[in-house]
Amino acid sequence: MAITGTAITGTALTGTALTGTAVAGTVVAGTVAKRVAVIGASGYGGLQTLRLLHQHPGLTVTFLGGERSSGKRWSELNPFLPLPGDPVVQSPDPDAIAAVADLAVLSLPNGLAAQLVPPLLERGVKVVDLSADYRYRSLTQWQEVYATEARQIHRSDAELCLEAVYGLVEWEEERIRTARLVAVPGCFPTASLLGLLPFLKQGLIESNGIIIDAKTGTSGGGRAAKEALLLAEASEAVAPYGVIGHRHTSEIEQLASQVAGSPIQLQFTPHLIPMVRGLLATVYCRLRDPGLTADDCTTMLEAAYRHAPCVEVLPVGTYPSTKWVRQTNRALLSVQVDSRSGQLIVMGVIDNLVKGQAGQGVQCLNLMAGLDAATGLPTVPFYP
Amino acid sequence: MAITGTAITGTALTGTALTGTAVAGTVVAGTVAKRVAVIGASGYGGLQTLRLLHQHPGLTVTFLGGERSSGKRWSELNPFLPLPGDPVVQSPDPDAIAAVADLAVLSLPNGLAAQLVPPLLERGVKVVDLSADYRYRSLTQWQEVYATEARQIHRSDAELCLEAVYGLVEWEEERIRTARLVAVPGCFPTASLLGLLPFLKQGLIESNGIIIDAKTGTSGGGRAAKEALLLAEASEAVAPYGVIGHRHTSEIEQLASQVAGSPIQLQFTPHLIPMVRGLLATVYCRLRDPGLTADDCTTMLEAAYRHAPCVEVLPVGTYPSTKWVRQTNRALLSVQVDSRSGQLIVMGVIDNLVKGQAGQGVQCLNLMAGLDAATGLPTVPFYP
Amino acid sequence: MAITGTAITGTALTGTALTGTAVAGTVVAGTVAKRVAVIGASGYGGLQTLRLLHQHPGLTVTFLGGERSSGKRWSELNPFLPLPGDPVVQSPDPDAIAAVADLAVLSLPNGLAAQLVPPLLERGVKVVDLSADYRYRSLTQWQEVYATEARQIHRSDAELCLEAVYGLVEWEEERIRTARLVAVPGCFPTASLLGLLPFLKQGLIESNGIIIDAKTGTSGGGRAAKEALLLAEASEAVAPYGVIGHRHTSEIEQLASQVAGSPIQLQFTPHLIPMVRGLLATVYCRLRDPGLTADDCTTMLEAAYRHAPCVEVLPVGTYPSTKWVRQTNRALLSVQVDSRSGQLIVMGVIDNLVKGQAGQGVQCLNLMAGLDAATGLPTVPFYP
Amino acid sequence: MAITGTAITGTALTGTALTGTAVAGTVVAGTVAKRVAVIGASGYGGLQTLRLLHQHPGLTVTFLGGERSSGKRWSELNPFLPLPGDPVVQSPDPDAIAAVADLAVLSLPNGLAAQLVPPLLERGVKVVDLSADYRYRSLTQWQEVYATEARQIHRSDAELCLEAVYGLVEWEEERIRTARLVAVPGCFPTASLLGLLPFLKQGLIESNGIIIDAKTGTSGGGRAAKEALLLAEASEAVAPYGVIGHRHTSEIEQLASQVAGSPIQLQFTPHLIPMVRGLLATVYCRLRDPGLTADDCTTMLEAAYRHAPCVEVLPVGTYPSTKWVRQTNRALLSVQVDSRSGQLIVMGVIDNLVKGQAGQGVQCLNLMAGLDAATGLPTVPFYP
Repeated sequence: MAITGTAITGTALTGTALTGTAVAGTVVAGTVAKRVAVIGASGYGGLQTLRLLHQHPGLTVTFLGGERSSGKRWSELNPFLPLPGDPVVQSPDPDAIAAVADLAVLSLPNGLAAQLVPPLLERGVKVVDLSADYRYRSLTQWQEVYATEARQIHRSDAELCLEAVYGLVEWEEERIRTARLVAVPGCFPTASLLGLLPFLKQGLIESNGIIIDAKTGTSGGGRAAKEALLLAEASEAVAPYGVIGHRHTSEIEQLASQVAGSPIQLQFTPHLIPMVRGLLATVYCRLRDPGLTADDCTTMLEAAYRHAPCVEVLPVGTYPSTKWVRQTNRALLSVQVDSRSGQLIVMGVIDNLVKGQAGQGVQCLNLMAGLDAATGLPTVPFYP
Repeated sequence: MAITGTAITGTALTGTALTGTAVAGTVVAGTVAKRVAVIGASGYGGLQTLRLLHQHPGLTVTFLGGERSSGKRWSELNPFLPLPGDPVVQSPDPDAIAAVADLAVLSLPNGLAAQLVPPLLERGVKVVDLSADYRYRSLTQWQEVYATEARQIHRSDAELCLEAVYGLVEWEEERIRTARLVAVPGCFPTASLLGLLPFLKQGLIESNGIIIDAKTGTSGGGRAAKEALLLAEASEAVAPYGVIGHRHTSEIEQLASQVAGSPIQLQFTPHLIPMVRGLLATVYCRLRDPGLTADDCTTMLEAAYRHAPCVEVLPVGTYPSTKWVRQTNRALLSVQVDSRSGQLIVMGVIDNLVKGQAGQGVQCLNLMAGLDAATGLPTVPFYP
Repeated sequence: MAITGTAITGTALTGTALTGTAVAGTVVAGTVAKRVAVIGASGYGGLQTLRLLHQHPGLTVTFLGGERSSGKRWSELNPFLPLPGDPVVQSPDPDAIAAVADLAVLSLPNGLAAQLVPPLLERGVKVVDLSADYRYRSLTQWQEVYATEARQIHRSDAELCLEAVYGLVEWEEERIRTARLVAVPGCFPTASLLGLLPFLKQGLIESNGIIIDAKTGTSGGGRAAKEALLLAEASEAVAPYGVIGHRHTSEIEQLASQVAGSPIQLQFTPHLIPMVRGLLATVYCRLRDPGLTADDCTTMLEAAYRHAPCVEVLPVGTYPSTKWVRQTNRALLSVQVDSRSGQLIVMGVIDNLVKGQAGQGVQCLNLMAGLDAATGLPTVPFYP
Repeated sequence: MAITGTAITGTALTGTALTGTAVAGTVVAGTVAKRVAVIGASGYGGLQTLRLLHQHPGLTVTFLGGERSSGKRWSELNPFLPLPGDPVVQSPDPDAIAAVADLAVLSLPNGLAAQLVPPLLERGVKVVDLSADYRYRSLTQWQEVYATEARQIHRSDAELCLEAVYGLVEWEEERIRTARLVAVPGCFPTASLLGLLPFLKQGLIESNGIIIDAKTGTSGGGRAAKEALLLAEASEAVAPYGVIGHRHTSEIEQLASQVAGSPIQLQFTPHLIPMVRGLLATVYCRLRDPGLTADDCTTMLEAAYRHAPCVEVLPVGTYPSTKWVRQTNRALLSVQVDSRSGQLIVMGVIDNLVKGQAGQGVQCLNLMAGLDAATGLPTVPFYP
């Protein structure tokens, strides 16, 4: 059975499809499906990755790795997500992974990915990392922002930080295609930057005074049990958290500054919303030319994402709901302008676990496997 | 554009697929995709049907019908569910439908379907009806149970009631395959009967004293605005409704009696649960042979659904959550036995809008189109 | 029975208390409890008012008015909220109201209050109005902002608009005490202004560039059935609405300008949150003196509300949850400062139906009845 | 300050009331308020107890005990529930408790109460225990049902088990009044037994075949973080748990058998509902006399609870919602009869944390303090 080491020869975990999508051959034009290891399979990032790779026409899961769940049969851990062959979760040994996988998705706590990435790269396994470990070009900055983790884990992979590509697909598609290591952006940075970057790049907005007021469902806090994320605590409640100092602030600022060509400092305030999935970023900024209208800004944004199948710009006056993108890899953007003040409001919604995490990870995998970024990813929601 | 009358020649609404599933030809082995009209497209039943037919390998939507939304462009009504070509909703004229469709799915209020079905059948369009209009073999019984509707709508189609096939796919597959008219079961009957029928058929349980305690999400009440279904009213609340007299009681009793071979009267009590989707039926009955164990009953149930890809029996001690089937067409069943009393508890979960409505409708469409029942239907949930 | 016309002599609706709070005599020092009419009793504003006046030591409900529910017994309409004597809802006739009530709370749709207020005032009944009809000092402005209502209802009560006191209790206590007519502020203005006004009054913040990003539960949309407020639609979703043009913008600007002493234009964006109750305003503004710290701002805010029992300022670093004020009349405020930019963030939470509506209405009633504003109002939440 | 040892002399924690309910003197007729220790203050049981004793006219909290939170200031732990004097949580030392309290409420994990109860009773402190430790008259049965706890904790207090009174207030009022030790019933037993016992006592129903299908909000699982109770897991889901073997089965059977006068075995199946609070028990049983109507049964039930201010029987055809009793100490009951089968359905709703736990605990405290059972307890909900 593939999962125990002879993956190359055998049945792939995601192989059999009810509706005949064993059409990978057609889609991938004669190439063999790439083999993927999923490490940290029981957390939400891992679960989503497995769900998205189910029946994927060009990628096939050949290794299921987990530390705590190692040795357990998959169906015991997650009876709700049947996997072909009901594999056993394995300890994430680099040699074992390299023996059966071309690519690996790491869904591990911050700090742990940095220990597995170097040996995997050495063994020729390309990596898509869902953690924050390689999101900063500077290891020093990571050590400052993630100080708690940095105190516990010694890292000396500053070169890998420089080499890693920031996996915001619509902005780094070409570099991702040839990368060995991709750092998938955080959920908040994804929703915030998609709407903000086109305006920064065109120089249409003032670079100071940008405010991001973000709202996320509780699955963003992960699957580990925490009192604040209990239904009894988080339901019937909305509250800000991490005001001023949230870690995603510097992550957003890094790419915003790079695209704007000058240092950007902005305000980022996340709020916890009583729902499972979904993330909305409401971004406030000031137009340099107060004569620009919402229609102008919408046209500009549409142009920026003309060739991005996973980003859609809504008509002026239609405001996005997170429900419209749930369980899809789409981002919906909408803009509004207050003509009194020249204030621009950019609203962006994503599913925090898909476009905000595992789905964007699969986009990166697709590119690294030579496929179109959107291959196999859902874009139409089940509603309601 | 297909949707406005020349459907036969042109682009189908569900044609273009991101990931290359325009592989219908492969799957359906040379046959042309069947053309489907969806009538009542803006309600939840219609929306789900459209979502499920999106990228379907053997069925293609060629007509979008609605009374109130007639003349409106689809994207205005439902910006969250993009359809190729952004069609205009049309008045459900039988001639217009017959001109472009082989099959029709009706998602209309009770009583209205019965007005559209006869003219559609006359024009050679086969019908899958999501309402209760053809669920009873006796028109008289329908008129008693749906007395309010019967007072407003004159029906004289008793023969069609007799002809119509009850679309509980796992129990009527052969008859559905050749039917002109299929009445898709209600959500509660589907979840209740799937667990109950095998025991009745085998004569393993007493036919009196059966109790069904059911729990449903609020989408079961439809999309029309009602005070009781407001979030402010239905959230943070659970309550029974329709105690004793709920209409689904007689619908369940009809098939239960038929399968048992003797008249069955049972207790059915639905409860409204503060969630969008999902339906759980907890069924209590008494074993004739008190020596039977939960393992015995599980084995029997597994045998009954061995060839049913959309029904799965869980191991003893694993109890199903509605979350495990959300947005899939699967039913999960589990049984437990109290050895003290010989009481059997059968638990069944479905997504009320998929296996409990539109998904089962698509299963019927598939069979009527010569496909496997499960073709194109989702079976793996996004979790959480 | 009081409710049918002889209220003055008989048992009051809110009279009997389980725990002996028929101690109004003690509290109100010898005076007789004031008699209150509640008009629009079945909506959320009316329901909350009745709940808050239950066992109130100085106010007693003597008239229950409603247009649509007129003639119906209370327990049929709202079996969950028992009222002494189970009164019949009456048509809101001014003479009938004046015969039994000293004060009236109007919880009616915008535009309708303005038709009932003049005859009530003429008959000597003081009015607390929960609608927007008297929130603007200028009738012309009301007619612009509430243009839809203004087209249907002719108003010529510009003098009453000027006379009416804006019932933001902590800022207008003295004027409310002697008012004939009080316009209770909207829920968003209440939460936004409580945090903002002290900084404007002290001149500590720049008057332009203020941004209010607000989040509300769905009960803010009222009890009338609307599709967008169905649980199936609003659950598992967060979305902005009324971007740029929301009516509460001008209401906030009116008082903000008055307190600041100069015209203020600000950005106000509400968001719908999947919960029943609760409202959070996250207010972003810029400090004039960038050297001010969060501690400084907290101290200032504490000083401003030192004598306000319903407003509490949290320690720096403790951010308020709407859950902490649910079903209480308290507002919790918290401030944070980004020393990099001099940005001040003021967070305020209230229960939209209590401090944001009916509770603030009862504060006004209390003052008009010669009581302390907080008399009889809950300040401690049931948690969770 | 009371909380640090000199409680007898000083200000009580629950003393100062905003609205002048320092009317205890009137209510308790010249007696001094009883002093109460709350042990396990940070869990939901403890929090609710503190909330309910806030402004209580005859009981005053003088000791706050907790193991893990010992030494911490209350406001740090629970900023949302202000307590007068902001006391420090203390280690639950029996001598310290006895020095300042007449009565103690224990809200501790099963097994732990049994270690604190004997020393408290020896020191003259009467105890209301919210755990299951003293709910069985037989220690042996407790050790069987709570086998996990029994393996870790040695108990030799069989006499105390016999002495303890089962605190189902409406059925044991007289014995509670004079008890030293009261075991507050579980939430499920409370809701189930209130509806069932009158019928068993009158011999109106068959004693076999009783089925209880119960539904509870997630706060019933406590405040300790567990994966299954995360909002991301429990939201949008309903599922049975503890099928057949749930511990509350034997607790229900014990009192049911005692009241019926013969051994009762019944079926109890709990379900987890995606809401914070509320518990519904739907009880199915068979009438001995099939001629009895729902009206007959309602009359009988009303008679049984004529003098119980916290239990109300709804009219036939009005079915209770948990929302109608949220944050109150009321139980609402409703019955329906299927004349075809003589099946009786008894529906009962409570707030699991109030009448199902802390509120019933306060009823017991009240009785033990010589007060009316309902003293100071809320009976009217905030709706919605």
